[in-house]
Parts: sequence; structure tokens; C-alpha cells
Amino acid sequence: MNGHSLSVGAAPMCNTENSPQTEHTWHYEGAEKLLEVWWKPVNKPEVDLRNIKREKLVKLLDKIKCEIVSETRTEDQVAYVLSESSMFLSERRFILKTCGKTTLLFAMEDILKLAREIGFEDVEDIFYSRKNFLRPELQVGPHKNFEDEVSVLDKIFPNGAAYVLGRMNGDCWYLYTLDVALSVQEPDQTLEILMSDLDRDVMAQFYKTDCTTAEEVSELIFGSDETDVTRTAAVKTPNKTGISDLLPELKIDAVLFDPCGYSMNGLLPNGGYVTIHVTPEPEFSYVSFESNVSRVS
Amino acid sequence: MNGHSLSVGAAPMCNTENSPQTEHTWHYEGAEKLLEVWWKPVNKPEVDLRNIKREKLVKLLDKIKCEIVSETRTEDQVAYVLSESSMFLSERRFILKTCGKTTLLFAMEDILKLAREIGFEDVEDIFYSRKNFLRPELQVGPHKNFEDEVSVLDKIFPNGAAYVLGRMNGDCWYLYTLDVALSVQEPDQTLEILMSDLDRDVMAQFYKTDCTTAEEVSELIFGSDETDVTRTAAVKTPNKTGISDLLPELKIDAVLFDPCGYSMNGLLPNGGYVTIHVTPEPEFSYVSFESNVSRVS
Repeated sequence: MNGHSLSVGAAPMCNTENSPQTEHTWHYEGAEKLLEVWWKPVNKPEVDLRNIKREKLVKLLDKIKCEIVSETRTEDQVAYVLSESSMFLSERRFILKTCGKTTLLFAMEDILKLAREIGFEDVEDIFYSRKNFLRPELQVGPHKNFEDEVSVLDKIFPNGAAYVLGRMNGDCWYLYTLDVALSVQEPDQTLEILMSDLDRDVMAQFYKTDCTTAEEVSELIFGSDETDVTRTAAVKTPNKTGISDLLPELKIDAVLFDPCGYSMNGLLPNGGYVTIHVTPEPEFSYVSFESNVSRVS
Repeated sequence: MNGHSLSVGAAPMCNTENSPQTEHTWHYEGAEKLLEVWWKPVNKPEVDLRNIKREKLVKLLDKIKCEIVSETRTEDQVAYVLSESSMFLSERRFILKTCGKTTLLFAMEDILKLAREIGFEDVEDIFYSRKNFLRPELQVGPHKNFEDEVSVLDKIFPNGAAYVLGRMNGDCWYLYTLDVALSVQEPDQTLEILMSDLDRDVMAQFYKTDCTTAEEVSELIFGSDETDVTRTAAVKTPNKTGISDLLPELKIDAVLFDPCGYSMNGLLPNGGYVTIHVTPEPEFSYVSFESNVSRVS
């Protein structure tokens, strides 16, 4: 995902000439840093993360080098498409997912502070996770390696547990969570599918020059269950047996970035969400799908 | 384990005054770096790791800061108690286990070279593993962190896979092995039990001032299956229902270091081995048990 090419700010990502990198080739790190924090229930209507003022969120995001691009609200949550991925706030759950060279963990203390200001004292659990980066040396702050990220979190949480799943010198998944006997009590799980090195032709559909609107791209994704569908055919005759049939209540907020890249937040009742981010450039193509929806087709 | 206090060389470990550390307190890292390398069978009698000349092994060990203390041979293997743990050589399996501030991976290229000199070309598999260190910052060379160790090995082996099992910011076990479809074909497994923060009274038995000889300490370990046995009682009336009954063919080579610490190699037919190392100092007590014996009691 990739607001990095957005008009709201950061450097164009399909243009190597204006690259701020000192390296010879432009690189965009699609793999997201993902933070999910749950606070212990307070059960007072005013104690609700959605009461955090937007200007405070803007300031928070500015610190870690990203911006709000779009906002969607449902009865029980508010979702933001960011210049670099997504943010979801519900009563006591805060999800922040940022890619590129954002410095997500610089926001950790501020997030706890904002939550305290509206009445949340005790963190119930946190989950900080990410896939290994393609170019970790280009990251900023503690994000160059997981050990430094763990050090930042260990200073805040005395009972954090850090794990590496998979091959450390290949594809792996890093996770930091709290070592608590009784964690989040609500039935909750998150499915993440992280894909890299994707098909060029499929990725070509996520360039603004190919698709006029984010809606067309969303139709492309959700309107068909054909895996080898071409853009033209899909846009012309969207197959309505896709995700919109499986999740008819899904409220979609999608952004197609210029010149390329796609971000989508989908909201469902009772805190359910789906979020998809596409970095289409062939040199570092990346797609993530994340959802807490337990329904299976 | 702990030849670090041995007369053969390194600094006394129960004496903080002569500590070479810049830190205020003396520390000895009992947790071993463990390397096991298998070469593909050549099936010529002269192509046998046991044909590596002892002076070459001495030179190899000198490079990584340890020395041979004792040697035992059986029909199919030769075992060395080292000033810092153990080394086992059989026809095509090389095991090197070193603790303290030894720089085991500095020997990796030399081990491959020595094996090539006697006719082994192709490595079948390697296993480099260790527990997390208590004081990684006191280690030397690439051993300060697993990522650096992996970098060293990745330069030698194009198909290495690195894993972290357990909690990265707590107790964990690091492993580097080759990603090979068909690895070692012989039935083979290694059991390791690594213990730290041990009972002071039990550890007191591994001080030379308490036990006169390594044999007495070995009796203490193997001569009884009582867990709360006291040294005096055990030495006086060794209970012969211990490991020596379970493994009657075990050929033991044990060393009690001065002023404290214990190392034992036990050899069995067909490449079987047991090795135990004890670092008894209460501040950083550590015991390791390792064996490839598949028999269960």
C-alpha cells in the first residue's frame, strides 16, 4: 500500500528521478508495520477511542510520516485510509497499519497518552507485527531490525513477548505481544495474507493510468471470483458473486493513488473489518489482505 | 561448562579480582555454541574425520580460544573434553561445542578445509544452535547476536535457514541449518536439556574444594537416581541403579575444573554420545545435557 505517491505528500513512487533515496534504485516497502492495541473495558459511554479528536490523530500521524486520506464511519467504528495504509478505531481497539518508511513505533507512547486522556488506563493486550522487510536498511528509527523494535516496546511494556515465526534469513513474521494469562476476552482473530513478487499483468490494474477510479478497481477485486480475470472484462461485466455477496453489509472506502497503488478499508457490523493494500510496482510488488471476519465461505 | 578456570589457560572464574571484564561483576557464559556438521559419505577408509591430525585440531581450537583437556577413543569415535566444553569426531560427523567467550564460528571455514584435506567435499547438513546468552554484549566476534552469526554462515552456505524458537526477548533457542530436501539419512536425533538458575546446594558439589575428583562427581551424577541426594551420602553409597545401569557400555571421560566446574563426555557404540557440562557459580549457574541416544528408560 502506498499513499507515498499521493498528492497529500510523499515522493512519487513510480519515478526514480525524484527519488529521495541515496541508493541507485527506487524502492518502496509495501510490507506494513501493524499495531493493534486493546484497552481493558471501562464501560462509560464517554470512554471511547472514537472520541479522540481528529486533529490529535492528524498530529500523531504526522509524527510517524503519514496522513489521513479518507474517513468512513459506521455505528461502531471509524476507519481511515492513510497515505501509508490504514487506521481503525472502535470503542477500545486501536489498529494502526503503516507501510513505506513510516516510523509507527514513534507513535506508541502518544497512542497510550491519547487513550489515557479519554479515560483508558490499562492496556489489555497489544500486537505489533510485520513481515520481514525487503530492504530493512532503508527503514528509519527502530524499524531497521526487529531487535530494536522490541527494545522500544520492552521499555514501555514490562511483560512483552517477542517471537519470530518462519525463517529469519528468508520470509518470516515478527510478533510482539503481551504475556498475559487472560488477554482479550472477546472472540477475536485476525487473518493476514501477505503476498509479494506478484504477476505483472494483474498488478498493472492498480495503476491510475489503467483504471480511472478506485471504484472500478474495487469492482475488479470484489466483483469477480475469477482468478485470471482481465481488467477490461471485469470492469465491463463485473461478476457479482464475489466478496460483496459473501459480505453484503461491507461498507467500502477505497483509494486509487496517483500514479499507482490501491488502498481499501471495508467495515462490517460489530467491529468487523477488511483492509487491502496494493503496491503494484514490479520491482517490489506487494499485496496485503487483513480481516478479523470469522465467516468462511 | 567451563574449562575457563582450568590450569590450561583462561582466567579463574570464581575470582572477581582478576576478572578480565570491564564490567563490575565477573560473568561466565555457560550456554554453549553448538555446531554439528555432517559430510556426504565417501566410503573410503582413509576418508574419516578421525584422521585429522591432533596438532591441526589444537591449532583450530586455539583460533577460537579453547584447548584440549582430555581425549577418549572408542572403535567409532573420538571425544575431547575441552577447556570450554567438548568436541566429538566420528567418520563423517563433527561436533564442536564451546562456551564462555569462545568464537566458534571463526572455525567454520577451517573445519571445512580440514575435512577437504582428508577427502570430504560435500557437506550434507549443518546444525548451528545455541540458547540465548545471559550477557550477549560480552561475547566476541559475530556471537553478540544471532543475526551476525547468520551472516557469517550465509556467506558460506547458500541454502542456510535460520530460526528462533521461543521468546526472542526471553528464553529462546537459535538454530541455523541447511534447507535440504534429503538431509542426514541415518536415524539421528539430539536431545538437549539446558538449565539455568540452579539450586545452590546442588551446584556446590561441582566445586573442587567439595569434591576431590571428577570420578566422585560422576558417581554423584550417574550413581543415583535420587533427585535430592546429598553429595556425602551419594559418594559413600552410590546407588548403582542410575545411568550406568541404563547405559552399561558408556565410556566416561570427566573433568572437574579448579576451582569449580565439571565436564563429561560419555561414548557409546555406533556413534552414541552423552555430554554434560556444569557451570556452578550461583550468579550464572548453568547445566547442559546433550545426547543422541535414542533409548528411553
